[in-house]
Amino acid sequence: MSSCFCKEGDTPIELSREPARSMESQASDPLVKSSDPRHPANLICSLCKLFYYNNWVTGTGGGISIKHPETGHIYIAPSGVQKEQLQPEHMFVMDRASGAYIRTPQLYKPSACTPLFLSCYSQRNAGAVIHTHSQHAVMCSLIFDKEFRIANIEQIKAIPSGKKDPLRGKDLNLSFFDTLVIPIIDNTAHEEDLTDGLQEALLAYPNATAVIVRRHGIYVWGPTVDKAKVFNEAIDYLMELACKMRQLGIPPDCGIGEESKFLR
Amino acid sequence: MSSCFCKEGDTPIELSREPARSMESQASDPLVKSSDPRHPANLICSLCKLFYYNNWVTGTGGGISIKHPETGHIYIAPSGVQKEQLQPEHMFVMDRASGAYIRTPQLYKPSACTPLFLSCYSQRNAGAVIHTHSQHAVMCSLIFDKEFRIANIEQIKAIPSGKKDPLRGKDLNLSFFDTLVIPIIDNTAHEEDLTDGLQEALLAYPNATAVIVRRHGIYVWGPTVDKAKVFNEAIDYLMELACKMRQLGIPPDCGIGEESKFLR
Amino acid sequence: MSSCFCKEGDTPIELSREPARSMESQASDPLVKSSDPRHPANLICSLCKLFYYNNWVTGTGGGISIKHPETGHIYIAPSGVQKEQLQPEHMFVMDRASGAYIRTPQLYKPSACTPLFLSCYSQRNAGAVIHTHSQHAVMCSLIFDKEFRIANIEQIKAIPSGKKDPLRGKDLNLSFFDTLVIPIIDNTAHEEDLTDGLQEALLAYPNATAVIVRRHGIYVWGPTVDKAKVFNEAIDYLMELACKMRQLGIPPDCGIGEESKFLR
Amino acid sequence: MSSCFCKEGDTPIELSREPARSMESQASDPLVKSSDPRHPANLICSLCKLFYYNNWVTGTGGGISIKHPETGHIYIAPSGVQKEQLQPEHMFVMDRASGAYIRTPQLYKPSACTPLFLSCYSQRNAGAVIHTHSQHAVMCSLIFDKEFRIANIEQIKAIPSGKKDPLRGKDLNLSFFDTLVIPIIDNTAHEEDLTDGLQEALLAYPNATAVIVRRHGIYVWGPTVDKAKVFNEAIDYLMELACKMRQLGIPPDCGIGEESKFLR
Ligand SMILES: [Zn+2]
Ligand SMILES: [Zn+2]
Ligand SMILES: [Zn+2]
Ligand SMILES: [Zn+2]
Repeated sequence: MSSCFCKEGDTPIELSREPARSMESQASDPLVKSSDPRHPANLICSLCKLFYYNNWVTGTGGGISIKHPETGHIYIAPSGVQKEQLQPEHMFVMDRASGAYIRTPQLYKPSACTPLFLSCYSQRNAGAVIHTHSQHAVMCSLIFDKEFRIANIEQIKAIPSGKKDPLRGKDLNLSFFDTLVIPIIDNTAHEEDLTDGLQEALLAYPNATAVIVRRHGIYVWGPTVDKAKVFNEAIDYLMELACKMRQLGIPPDCGIGEESKFLR
Repeated sequence: MSSCFCKEGDTPIELSREPARSMESQASDPLVKSSDPRHPANLICSLCKLFYYNNWVTGTGGGISIKHPETGHIYIAPSGVQKEQLQPEHMFVMDRASGAYIRTPQLYKPSACTPLFLSCYSQRNAGAVIHTHSQHAVMCSLIFDKEFRIANIEQIKAIPSGKKDPLRGKDLNLSFFDTLVIPIIDNTAHEEDLTDGLQEALLAYPNATAVIVRRHGIYVWGPTVDKAKVFNEAIDYLMELACKMRQLGIPPDCGIGEESKFLR
Repeated sequence: MSSCFCKEGDTPIELSREPARSMESQASDPLVKSSDPRHPANLICSLCKLFYYNNWVTGTGGGISIKHPETGHIYIAPSGVQKEQLQPEHMFVMDRASGAYIRTPQLYKPSACTPLFLSCYSQRNAGAVIHTHSQHAVMCSLIFDKEFRIANIEQIKAIPSGKKDPLRGKDLNLSFFDTLVIPIIDNTAHEEDLTDGLQEALLAYPNATAVIVRRHGIYVWGPTVDKAKVFNEAIDYLMELACKMRQLGIPPDCGIGEESKFLR
Repeated sequence: MSSCFCKEGDTPIELSREPARSMESQASDPLVKSSDPRHPANLICSLCKLFYYNNWVTGTGGGISIKHPETGHIYIAPSGVQKEQLQPEHMFVMDRASGAYIRTPQLYKPSACTPLFLSCYSQRNAGAVIHTHSQHAVMCSLIFDKEFRIANIEQIKAIPSGKKDPLRGKDLNLSFFDTLVIPIIDNTAHEEDLTDGLQEALLAYPNATAVIVRRHGIYVWGPTVDKAKVFNEAIDYLMELACKMRQLGIPPDCGIGEESKFLR
C-alpha cells in the first residue's frame, strides 16, 4: 500500500541502540559497516524489512543468514528482535572455519536458527538461508502429510531440480511438467532441536532447496542470496496457490485437464 | 505495495491543525516535542500509521497508549481521529499518580478507550496498550465462544505464558506444545462500559496478555511498547491463521496429526 | 508493502502533461495551485493515490469530488485517467451556483460521475463524494438483494445515523446494537444514467450516507472530505467483514450469540 | 502497507551491476539513459516495481516490453532477473524493422517472452505488452476451460471491444451488459513455444486484448503503455472478482438477478 501519507520528518521506530563502542572501534567495525548495499550486513536489513511487509517475519519470527561471498564469514540476524528494524550493527558474524563468533552485539543473543543455518551451509554449500513463518507454509503443512507437492505450474520453473546440464554443467531448474516436492518435517519444542530432522531431510531429499517445518514455517537456501530470495519468493507463490487450489477442491499436483473432476 | 509513484512534492493529507499555542509555550512543550523517535508521542504516531496500513485502525477505529518509561506519564491518542495522520501535538498526557490530564489538545476529546488502557496499567503494570479493530479478532470472536484457542503453532512462542523461570526469574513464553488462550468478552454500547468486563477477564485470566472484544476487536498489552507491538503482531498472525484453518474445517486447537480428520 | 527498494532517483510514471499554459496564466492558476495539502486539488490527488493502493480505483475506475469549503467551488477528477497519477492541474472546477465549469483541462473530459456527485451535493449538502469500485461493494451487491445490512459490529459506530442529539443538535452516529442499512441500486449502461436511481435512493433512505451500485461499486459522501473518507473506510471494512461472515455461513445481520446456528 | 519505517540511509538491494562501459559510451547510451520518466527504459523499471508489489512478477516471473512511440525501438526487460530491481541499463533494445538487437546488456540474456511480445507487436500493432504470473489468472485458468468469461460488471467497461465508433472512428470499449471473453491457451514446456498457441488465439479472437496461459499467467497488450497498464489492471480486477464469485458458487457470467440461485 501507498506511503503517500508519510511526511518528511516522520520518525521511524527504532530498536534499542547498541551501547556505543568507542569511536575508534566503531569506525573500524568493517565487519558490518559498508556503503555497499549488497554487503551482507546491509542486505539482511533490507531483506528482513521486505519480509516483514510480506507477513513472513512479524512478531520477531523468522530469520536470515548470508555468507559473505569473499570472506566466507557468516552473518546472522539476532534472536527475538523486530526484523523490520534491524540495523547492520545488530549482526552476529561467525568465522566459517572455526565456527567461532568474531562479532557479538552486546544487547542480543544469537538466533536459535543458527544450527539450522549452519547445516545448510555445510550440507548444501549454501550462500544464504532464509527462514520465514509464512502462513502459506504453515497451511500447506496442515494440508499435506510428508511432502508438499505441486505440479504443472509455470512458476515451478524458478526452482532448481538438483540436476545439471550434461553439456555445460550448469544447474538445471524444474520444468513445467515436473512436480515440485518439498519435504515437511515435524516441529520440535526448541528451534535448535530441529537440526536432526533438517539434516535427515537434506539427506533424504538431495535435490530439495527448501524444507517446510510443520506448524512453523519454511527454510529456503541457495548458492547466493539472490537465488535464495528468488527461490523463497517462487516457493511462497506456489504454496499460496496450492492453498487456493485446495480451497476449491483441486489437488495441487493433479494432472492438467483433471481440475473439473475435483472442482467444488 | 510500492510507493514508487510517490513524487517528491506529493502533499500528504493532514488533520486539522491545533490552534497555535504561543511561541513560548510551543517551544516549551517538552511533553510531546522530542527528536527521539522512541519518545511515546512520536511512537504513537509511527505505530498508528503502521496499524492503519494493516487495516487495524481504519475509519478512526482503535487506539494506543504508551507509558513514558522514565516519567511514568501516560500518552493517549485522541478519540475519533484518522489514526494515520496523528502528530505528536495531538496527544493527551495524563499524570499517572493523580489521574489528571497534564496536556489536553484543544480540538480533540480523550479516547473512549482511556478507562480500558488505565485498567491494563493498574492491573497488569503494562508499559503500553494497543487496541485494534482487526478483522481477524472480530472473525475469531464469531467462530469461538468464550475463549480463542490455538495450539501447536510456532508463533505461539512469541506470547508470554505468565510464568517465570524459577532460576533466573525471567518471564517465560508459551512453548510450541502449549495452547494459547485469550478470553473473549462481550461488547457494550459504549466503549468505556467495557471496563467491568475487561477487569473481570484480567482477574479470571491472570496470564493473558490480551482480551478479545466480541464483534469489536482486541486489546493487547505488554511491559514495554516493543513487547506490546510484538505480542499484538503474533496474536494477529495466530488469529488470521485460525480463520484460515477454520475455513478448511480444521479446529485451530486440534492435535498434531489430527488435521486430516477434519479437512474438508 | 514496503517501499524499501525504491531508490532515490527512481522515476515515477506520469500522466501525459497538460499543454503548458502561458507562464502568466500558470502562475495565476490559483484554482488548483496551492501549497496547502488540504486544498481540494491536492487532496483529490493524495486520496486517489491511497484509494489506488487499496484496489478501489485501479484501471481508471472510481472517482472523487470535493467542494472547496470556502469558495464552494466543486473539484472533480477527470474521466478515464489513472487515478494514482493525478496532478492538481488535471482537475475540473465547477461553479456551484451556475453549474458552469470555471476550469477545464484541455486533455481530459469531465467524469461521467459528475451528475451523481452533483446529486449528493444538492440533495445531501455533501462536502465531498467518494466513488470506488471496491470489490467488497461488488460482492455485497451479489450477496444482498435491495439492501446491504450488517448489525452489532463496533465499526458501525463510525457511520452517521441521520439523527441529531436532541440537546446539543450534534449529528449522532449509529450505535453498536443498530443495523447499518445501505440501499443497493441497479447499474445502468451509462454511469450518468445512474442519477435517477441514486436520487430515488436518496429520497427513500434519507439517513443513508452511501449507496451501493450493483455489480459496480459504491458512492459515499459526507459533510466534509475527512468525514467522507472515514465513512468510506468504515463502510468498506464492514462490507469486507460481511463477505467473510457470509463465507462461513453467518448472516452479517444475525443476532449476537446466534452465529453458531449458521456456522459451517 | 506503509513505508513509515524506512529510514533515510536505508540501503536498497541491487542487482549485480553491469560492467562499466567506458565513460564515453556510457554518457552516449541514449537508448536507455533519459531523464524523462516516460521513456520506455524508465517506465519498464517503475512498472516492474509496481507489478512486483502486486505479486505479479515475484520470483523473476513475468515481464514487459514497450515500443518507443517515436523511434519504434522495442525495449524488453532481460530474462530471469528480479523485476523490482531493474535499472534502465539492464534493457535489451531491438530494432523493429530488422529484428536485430541494437543494445545487449553483457550480464543478461534476452527474455524467453520475446517471440510472444513480437507476435503482439506484429499481429496487433501493440505499443506495449505486459506479461504477469498473476495468481488470479492461474486460478481462472483452472476454473474455466477454453475461455475466461465474466459479464455485467462495471469494470468491464475499461476493456476495448475491438469495435469502432462508426461516426468518429474511435475505439469502443465493452459495455456493462457485454461479456468479456479472454481465450485460454495451454502452456508449453518452453515459454518461446507458446508462440504458436498465442498466434492462433490472436487470429481466433480478433477483438481480444489479452490471452491467459493455463497454469502460467496472462499476456495483455494495448496501443500504448498506458492503455496496456489500464487493461491489465482492469482484467486482473475482473479475474480476482471471478475467483471470489466462484468461491461463493456464483458463475462469473451469470445473468443479473440470478445470483441467488447459485449462492451457497
Ligand atoms: Zn522459526
Ligand atoms: Zn474500539
Ligand atoms: Zn464507476
Ligand atoms: Zn511467464
